Amino acid sequence: MSAGKKEKRLVSIGPRPFAGLAPVFWVGTYDSRNRANIMTAAMGGLCCLHPPCLSVSVDTSSWTHGAISERRAFTVSIPDQSLVREFDFCGLVSGRDEDKFSALGLTPGVGEHVDAPYVEECPVVIELLLRHSLPLGSHTQFVGEIMDVKIRPECLNSDLVPEPEALRSFCFYPMSGEYYDLGRFLARAFAVGKTLGSFYGK
Amino acid sequence: MSAGKKEKRLVSIGPRPFAGLAPVFWVGTYDSRNRANIMTAAMGGLCCLHPPCLSVSVDTSSWTHGAISERRAFTVSIPDQSLVREFDFCGLVSGRDEDKFSALGLTPGVGEHVDAPYVEECPVVIELLLRHSLPLGSHTQFVGEIMDVKIRPECLNSDLVPEPEALRSFCFYPMSGEYYDLGRFLARAFAVGKTLGSFYGK
Repeated sequence: MSAGKKEKRLVSIGPRPFAGLAPVFWVGTYDSRNRANIMTAAMGGLCCLHPPCLSVSVDTSSWTHGAISERRAFTVSIPDQSLVREFDFCGLVSGRDEDKFSALGLTPGVGEHVDAPYVEECPVVIELLLRHSLPLGSHTQFVGEIMDVKIRPECLNSDLVPEPEALRSFCFYPMSGEYYDLGRFLARAFAVGKTLGSFYGK
Repeated sequence: MSAGKKEKRLVSIGPRPFAGLAPVFWVGTYDSRNRANIMTAAMGGLCCLHPPCLSVSVDTSSWTHGAISERRAFTVSIPDQSLVREFDFCGLVSGRDEDKFSALGLTPGVGEHVDAPYVEECPVVIELLLRHSLPLGSHTQFVGEIMDVKIRPECLNSDLVPEPEALRSFCFYPMSGEYYDLGRFLARAFAVGKTLGSFYGK
């Protein structure tokens, strides 16, 4: 077997919930007592461009599951690295038992377009109206239509495009249970591929 | 206004498709001519733990959209940084017009559990059976149940857990259209939060 062949060898680890790195989201809702709550989520992301939609998967037994179903609205606040401890804390306690905003000294912002609170300290906030609820087993996937994106002004360039490095995001790795920060710029999309295949020499 | 207050100020950029960093996936299918094809995707991720499911959003006009709908199966291959040009290339051309495996010199592996091909050169490969198709507008979200995960053995630790640094993954930023690599280890999940709030001093 050549070295090249050996490099390609893969081993099976079975039907495990692993798909590499995942973005991290705080899902904001008002609960049945009208209290602002946030849930730590690491299963979600954009799922449609027109209309712009975002999905997030929520454990059916969680406090947030009931809140999204009742209010049909939620927010996503994306923390920066300075908030990694606070983010992790919210995955360890339930809004049933604890006022997480108060425990962490975070500020609940009032949604401008939807009936849900957000985390004012985050550099990115997304307001969503619930469009679909898809029960999948342990989790329900909630699909929300994006009503607005709010960003800290110093994280935008002059074209009002978010600058990845300024957002100081981090991501989550399932199975190993680790947070990693964003690395260095690698390449420009819809561009770097033009040096290959049918584009080659054009 | 205090400095603290000023830091929290957010500006609206409207209902844009932005949700920070996203994982990158090659979606593998056999097309109507039985040819192995791969699509570049940056909207998808895990969406359920039990059973383990993964969703991926696919443009309704794309070649892959028809292939998944017909075969009811697909794979996700996660490229490492050495494949960023090849990954970008596949977002620039359609499987209707070009044999991307052949153009890029990649090897189509034959799915062990599902009727779909994968990229042998990738360190992570996931085999999926289609469970749900959710039309959202420009994109359909396909939810697949994970039948198997295959990983390059040198990317696993002794507990058969994938090691983030060994996978050498990269991520995509929508709007700015940039690829970034994975950064440094930041913190352990379900642990670092135990220094805060109700855990404090315990």
